[in-house]
Amino acid sequence: MSNYIIVPIVVGLLAVVFAGLLARYVLSKDTGTPAMQKVADAIFKGAMAFLNRQYRTIATLAVVAAVIVAVVLGLLGQGTQADKISLAWHTALAFLIGALCSGVSGYIGMYVAVKSNSRTASAATRSLGEALMVSLRGGAVSGFLVVALSLLGVSPAFTAYRGLTNPELAPSLIVGFGFGASFLALFAQLGGGIYTKAADVGADLVGKVEAGIPEDDPRNPAVIADLVGDNVGDCAGRGADLFESTAAENIGAMILGVALYLATKNVGWILFPLVVRAFGLIASALGLLWVRPSVVTEPDKAAGKDPGEIAMQQLNIGYFITCGISIIGVFLGSYLLLGGTGVSSSNGVPPWVWFGLAGTVGILLSIAFVYITQYYTAGTWRPVREIAAATLTGPATTIITGVAVGFECVALPVLAICAALGLSFFLGSQVTISTGSPISVGGIFGTAVATMGMLMSCAYILAMDTFGPITDNAGGITEMGGQAESVRDITDALDGVGNTTKALTKGYGIGSAALAAFLLFSAYLDVIYSYTCPTSAHCTATQAANVYSVDLASIPVFIAALIGITLIFFFSALAIRAVGAAAKRMIEEVRRQFRADPKIMAEDPADRHDPDYARCVDISTRGALRAMVLPGLVAVLTPIAVGIALGPQAEAGMLMVGTMGGIVLALFLNNGGGAWDNAKKYIEAGYLRVNAEGEMVDRLDPNGTVLGKKSEPHKASVVGDTVGDPFKDTAGPSLHVLIKLLSTITLVLAPLYITIHPITFALH
Amino acid sequence: MSNYIIVPIVVGLLAVVFAGLLARYVLSKDTGTPAMQKVADAIFKGAMAFLNRQYRTIATLAVVAAVIVAVVLGLLGQGTQADKISLAWHTALAFLIGALCSGVSGYIGMYVAVKSNSRTASAATRSLGEALMVSLRGGAVSGFLVVALSLLGVSPAFTAYRGLTNPELAPSLIVGFGFGASFLALFAQLGGGIYTKAADVGADLVGKVEAGIPEDDPRNPAVIADLVGDNVGDCAGRGADLFESTAAENIGAMILGVALYLATKNVGWILFPLVVRAFGLIASALGLLWVRPSVVTEPDKAAGKDPGEIAMQQLNIGYFITCGISIIGVFLGSYLLLGGTGVSSSNGVPPWVWFGLAGTVGILLSIAFVYITQYYTAGTWRPVREIAAATLTGPATTIITGVAVGFECVALPVLAICAALGLSFFLGSQVTISTGSPISVGGIFGTAVATMGMLMSCAYILAMDTFGPITDNAGGITEMGGQAESVRDITDALDGVGNTTKALTKGYGIGSAALAAFLLFSAYLDVIYSYTCPTSAHCTATQAANVYSVDLASIPVFIAALIGITLIFFFSALAIRAVGAAAKRMIEEVRRQFRADPKIMAEDPADRHDPDYARCVDISTRGALRAMVLPGLVAVLTPIAVGIALGPQAEAGMLMVGTMGGIVLALFLNNGGGAWDNAKKYIEAGYLRVNAEGEMVDRLDPNGTVLGKKSEPHKASVVGDTVGDPFKDTAGPSLHVLIKLLSTITLVLAPLYITIHPITFALH
Repeated sequence: MSNYIIVPIVVGLLAVVFAGLLARYVLSKDTGTPAMQKVADAIFKGAMAFLNRQYRTIATLAVVAAVIVAVVLGLLGQGTQADKISLAWHTALAFLIGALCSGVSGYIGMYVAVKSNSRTASAATRSLGEALMVSLRGGAVSGFLVVALSLLGVSPAFTAYRGLTNPELAPSLIVGFGFGASFLALFAQLGGGIYTKAADVGADLVGKVEAGIPEDDPRNPAVIADLVGDNVGDCAGRGADLFESTAAENIGAMILGVALYLATKNVGWILFPLVVRAFGLIASALGLLWVRPSVVTEPDKAAGKDPGEIAMQQLNIGYFITCGISIIGVFLGSYLLLGGTGVSSSNGVPPWVWFGLAGTVGILLSIAFVYITQYYTAGTWRPVREIAAATLTGPATTIITGVAVGFECVALPVLAICAALGLSFFLGSQVTISTGSPISVGGIFGTAVATMGMLMSCAYILAMDTFGPITDNAGGITEMGGQAESVRDITDALDGVGNTTKALTKGYGIGSAALAAFLLFSAYLDVIYSYTCPTSAHCTATQAANVYSVDLASIPVFIAALIGITLIFFFSALAIRAVGAAAKRMIEEVRRQFRADPKIMAEDPADRHDPDYARCVDISTRGALRAMVLPGLVAVLTPIAVGIALGPQAEAGMLMVGTMGGIVLALFLNNGGGAWDNAKKYIEAGYLRVNAEGEMVDRLDPNGTVLGKKSEPHKASVVGDTVGDPFKDTAGPSLHVLIKLLSTITLVLAPLYITIHPITFALH
Repeated sequence: MSNYIIVPIVVGLLAVVFAGLLARYVLSKDTGTPAMQKVADAIFKGAMAFLNRQYRTIATLAVVAAVIVAVVLGLLGQGTQADKISLAWHTALAFLIGALCSGVSGYIGMYVAVKSNSRTASAATRSLGEALMVSLRGGAVSGFLVVALSLLGVSPAFTAYRGLTNPELAPSLIVGFGFGASFLALFAQLGGGIYTKAADVGADLVGKVEAGIPEDDPRNPAVIADLVGDNVGDCAGRGADLFESTAAENIGAMILGVALYLATKNVGWILFPLVVRAFGLIASALGLLWVRPSVVTEPDKAAGKDPGEIAMQQLNIGYFITCGISIIGVFLGSYLLLGGTGVSSSNGVPPWVWFGLAGTVGILLSIAFVYITQYYTAGTWRPVREIAAATLTGPATTIITGVAVGFECVALPVLAICAALGLSFFLGSQVTISTGSPISVGGIFGTAVATMGMLMSCAYILAMDTFGPITDNAGGITEMGGQAESVRDITDALDGVGNTTKALTKGYGIGSAALAAFLLFSAYLDVIYSYTCPTSAHCTATQAANVYSVDLASIPVFIAALIGITLIFFFSALAIRAVGAAAKRMIEEVRRQFRADPKIMAEDPADRHDPDYARCVDISTRGALRAMVLPGLVAVLTPIAVGIALGPQAEAGMLMVGTMGGIVLALFLNNGGGAWDNAKKYIEAGYLRVNAEGEMVDRLDPNGTVLGKKSEPHKASVVGDTVGDPFKDTAGPSLHVLIKLLSTITLVLAPLYITIHPITFALH
């Protein structure tokens, strides 16, 4: 059975090759006119410069963290001196490998993404189909590398840490991998999120509002920084986010698998997450290959159909293909791996069918999230139109309505998560596995399989996500390169699709984070259990049950839980404030450049001087890196402080309630921000029409007066959009990362909390 | 010992007499010029008309709810048929009494408040001291009636339900009282909150922004509705809120006391909350009597000192006197009542000292909240100045900064709550009481005493709160009655003080709600325990411990908890949206009046027609009553649905995590809204000064250029203020009520959940 370790390794290597082929395809394309190349070059340099500096900063922080983790575990862990030292260096090394794998996949993915934008712009001069291909495949490099490297990091580490001969120990040794991934992701997402919004706000407030020049105008000194920002936020940031999801989820599920391995003598339970993820990679590749020029109707033959709609439809078909094959994959994986002694199920249905169904629930959840996110953020439905109507009475009502929409939009996704958790637990609990553990292991494993199911399409989702900044940049390059209107139409349409896919990815990110979090709680309780009750002789059944109970009615747990939810709000405050601080420097610099060289804005284009783009890039870079440190440290240190002060079970309370708060607040921030953004786009598209009384009418009502760009409602919608920017691109995505970080940091430092606060089985 | 029941009854009656004397004092004052009387009359009629209609609506809903509760408990309760019927009618009757007492105190308090405004305005023509006296005493009528009636409702009901002979049953029978109070409070706060903000937004957007007339201008058709709104929101709404706090807390503590009574054979443990509350009333009365003209320095003798500061200082001294006497009271109550067999303590310190100290912790927490709220909402400190600085770059940055401040301001209050809970639990747990219960009863009772300590100053706090709308109205009456500048200076100063005290009350409300909530959880678990293990023979110690455990790692509890926090967000969305809907109707009406009769705005004051104030009042009334039903029903039905679907322990999870979410979100909404409001006031006071580069400088910098009213930053600050209005006056305060409602509804229907989902002691 342990031969199956070969599957993730081989598929991971093949995925790297696949990513290489995609990259070769993209890089072989032509890069457009010299004017376009000049812009693309500036973006490329800016993005790489930011990434280099950011990774240097993170590397320093990571090495410090690794040393601290090693020292703490080496001194305060449990067991013999040799045990402690072994745990310490294994964990620290895994931490560094995790951070490194995440960093490498982010770096290469971003390299290809910023090489894809001008090629997409150039392809758009030829056809929609080719532009879609180039941008999607450019984005897919990042997607496939992220998942492949998460497999190639965990699988060999598992083998090297003697996972195949001694499987019950290895998962605990590699938890550091997940923490490393979280650590990198936190700073990558924070830094990228702050960068992108500082540049965006700076470019908009001074360029668009004060100087009155259009979006992506080359006279705006911050325009390149803005285009760079899209990459570092969405591509590098979200890549690290989902790398963390897959890594954390792999490890969480493997820790859970250990208990099942011990009961069933079948290592398949531990290997299952890796194998299923590998199947997911194959499914994603097949879905991706579906999207090709021959399935795309070109605009001139589309009978007036919107090119964005055409492109989105094909992306959706590719996604459904991925999901369909994933369902087959999860059943196959369950059939091959989830057996062994003592595994039985009710109703005569074989166990693997129940787990296959649980995995299907997770896959369906990912589809549900796609639709729910679209409902709340696309202009076709009530929420965005409600905000558009509120712009008629000014910025205040725009904000109030947007906040109400944001608060409201929490409900459906949470109900979907609850339904998926409950259902997959029910399906899993149809399988009885005699582990001697006090909890329904089958049910918990059912939720784990659902999480894996959801994350199988991760590579495809990430390809769609990175597609966003690529097409956004392609639009900017087309504009600044002075291309024809028809080309801009194509890149605009793809840019619109990119906005939708970016929103979907965020929904997917938070949904998978929620499922993964529950899995990680269970893994954490397993770890506490294994320390407290190393053999069944150590604990009575009651005592074991107490270890697995996180009792909110106990004062320390209650206090820790309150602190957890407060951390979520406080962290968001710091992240939003960081954007403000970095944006302020940007605004000052843009104003300074306009003052210092009036020729930037000369009437005659021939007289114009180029602004100093690089300086703005540099200011954003330094501002973002400085600003990311405080929220990052708060996020890392709070759970440690709570664990040390209040003990392992209070820590679990903080983790769980903090996670719930994070899910809810992130949904509010992401969807509220997305809805404001699209209300602005709705108005810009000319859909806001009013009757003689000034009331909104249907967007296609021929008798309505269109209130479009530069109208008062449009100005109000710009205020809403600007408010939503740091919500949806900085604080919200950073919360996804934070809630997983809470879990991984807690898992890694569990031995510390247990040493300080041994569980004595006293009742509270 | 049971003779002590006389204390709350006698003190309650005396407090009613005291409130009567205060009312007589206020009503004996003259009501000013005919112009002032005319305005005051219009406010009085509008407020009473709203209250009458609102109470009629609520009464209908309450009777329906009482019948449903009776039927459900009568059919699905536990025990014999006679038991069920007894529980059913006792609970339903107590429910109606609770709602009635809350309604009566709200009605009379509001009656006096709206009679006090013109008398305050008139007193302001004579002296600051007299104006302060009239407004504070007018507000105190409401404050003392609320607390007195909560005592006079619970104490006789406890006696009538045979609490003195059979104390272990009575508290469960009177839980309905708390639910009745919650039910009324929910709708009173929602309706009042929606009314006040719909009128305010309508008056501001059309009057101030579109027509360009000042605040409180008689030409604005919505001006009376706006003044009425201040009363129905702050006076009636907050009165019901704090009535609910005291009632819920009394009952929660009495249920807890039952276990201690059974162990100690001393009914003092059950009577303690009532007696301490009575002592608190005495302390509040003494504090209130401190504030009198002879301690107030009149403005002409104050050497330029701000009259608002002078008044605030005296209110603070009164509050400290109340707190000081309360500390004595809580020690005295502990000494008299908290003894009995089997009560012992460590370190040789007698048990009553430990509980006295725990009560002191609660009193100190109330003082801490006063300072923390001031820090976040007063212009003297960083947060408000940060928002003021952000107005320089427009409404978008104003909103972003305000949201960041709001998120941030959650941290300190939560840490204060955590510290108070932890400390009072620790102090209480120094006392050992052998109850046979698996939990540290002393510790839990310690937190209960802290809650009681905090709520001792309730009457004083409410007096300060209702002082707010009275002085606000007095300002409006002075303005509309055409009084001299020097009079307006005094009412403006008192109005500013009123804004501060209103903010303080909200902080106090959320702090006491947080403490009361923990108490109510414990009471709920006690109730489940008493049903599941009616005698110790029914359950083993382990099983008993399981009843007291709310295990977040169990799937139903986790799901319910997620739903709980989602309910908080969803309910807030509905509340905010309700304001929007009601405000929209108001805006249309004001615009219609301006169009229909241009003479309202005639140049020459002699030509002017009065607008139709009554119609605006009527529209606000109907709008608010219609809009309050949906959020109210969602709040009531969600916990019931969760309890029925997922069982009593999941219900506890929903309750706890929902409460935590509610605390945090309410703090965000209240303090964020307050900070925006005060940033606007900061700018209007001429404190926003900039240097030549346009950067903010110190508010008193003589070289700075003042950016005051009508400047762009001021407009941005008005947007912030408008956004904050429904946050701080509708959604935030409604959340206080909601979290207590969750507890009381859960307590009342506990028998239902247990019948449907009996606790079988299976491990999860």
